[in-house]
Amino acid sequence: MPDSDRAIQIKVLDYPVKPDNDDYFEQGSSMTEIIYNPIGIIHTPFKDIKGMPIQPAGARGVKGTIELNHDYVEGIHDLEGFSHIILIYHFHLSKDYSLKVKPFMDDTLRGVFSTRAPRRPNPIGMSVVRLVKIEKNILHIEDVDIVDGTPLLDIKPYVPEFDVQKVEKVGWLSQKADKAQKLISDGRFV
Amino acid sequence: MPDSDRAIQIKVLDYPVKPDNDDYFEQGSSMTEIIYNPIGIIHTPFKDIKGMPIQPAGARGVKGTIELNHDYVEGIHDLEGFSHIILIYHFHLSKDYSLKVKPFMDDTLRGVFSTRAPRRPNPIGMSVVRLVKIEKNILHIEDVDIVDGTPLLDIKPYVPEFDVQKVEKVGWLSQKADKAQKLISDGRFV
Repeated sequence: MPDSDRAIQIKVLDYPVKPDNDDYFEQGSSMTEIIYNPIGIIHTPFKDIKGMPIQPAGARGVKGTIELNHDYVEGIHDLEGFSHIILIYHFHLSKDYSLKVKPFMDDTLRGVFSTRAPRRPNPIGMSVVRLVKIEKNILHIEDVDIVDGTPLLDIKPYVPEFDVQKVEKVGWLSQKADKAQKLISDGRFV
Repeated sequence: MPDSDRAIQIKVLDYPVKPDNDDYFEQGSSMTEIIYNPIGIIHTPFKDIKGMPIQPAGARGVKGTIELNHDYVEGIHDLEGFSHIILIYHFHLSKDYSLKVKPFMDDTLRGVFSTRAPRRPNPIGMSVVRLVKIEKNILHIEDVDIVDGTPLLDIKPYVPEFDVQKVEKVGWLSQKADKAQKLISDGRFV
């Protein structure tokens, strides 16, 4: 695959973006822009962020499709053997970010990285969904909590041996995670 | 937060990148470049991709740190309440991609999206790690399967109610996932 065909390019900036962050630069970590291109588009019944379930647990049975760019069809060989897949996608409706947000399930301001809110510095979403079947470049999925038209960045197989961890603490969500199954979005994070 | 401060910009290309993909464009999904900036750097004992564990399950007890860009420290408030976090990062050593790869655990070519190999069209990695403690902008983590110097894109709380699914099938990995705990990388995917 020639380099020019790559969907990803990394452009190292030759100027310091945040010169006040001494530590950051002393470590030799030059600031880079990382450029991705969508590999497909996710189609779902949720035309708007309002009224959406806020997590897959609340989206049981909701059907959607992934329209994979034809260029990548060879890459989904063997995927149909998996009952669940991880979707990594871009929160395209998230136009800005906040370091403190009020999650749907709470009325206290929380650090955005301790929430799943879309208003993140890099608005990347992750959901585990059920893979029902594949027809050419169309993946039929279920248990979808994603807004229609979302650009898809990556698909990974969901493998309990890798992805399931036994937790001791779920922080501010400890009394609230169950509620997520019933709650729907009020559009707070658009 | 003014728009100019955003870590993320989306540039809509005004030319068709892949005009042969009619379906893709008929759906009104204009091709976009998605630009992210690292929010920090992941430091680990793995200076090289060779000899690395290939998944967190094989990385039990391996310690690392996240050096968060100071600008984002406010965003990790409340995170310490969670025992496990999801890291989304950029496979910076992955210089090219293949649609078919031979996974570490197999000698058969597999569609890249049915594997966790770094050589992906958008080389995005995802790992669930243990969060031990936070000191200012430094997050101490454990069970790390990530190469030193990896640019971090996002941190999310790991919440079983959202992230644990009961699977029926794990495809070509069905006889092999257990092995992952013992296997280490042979550098095949650099």
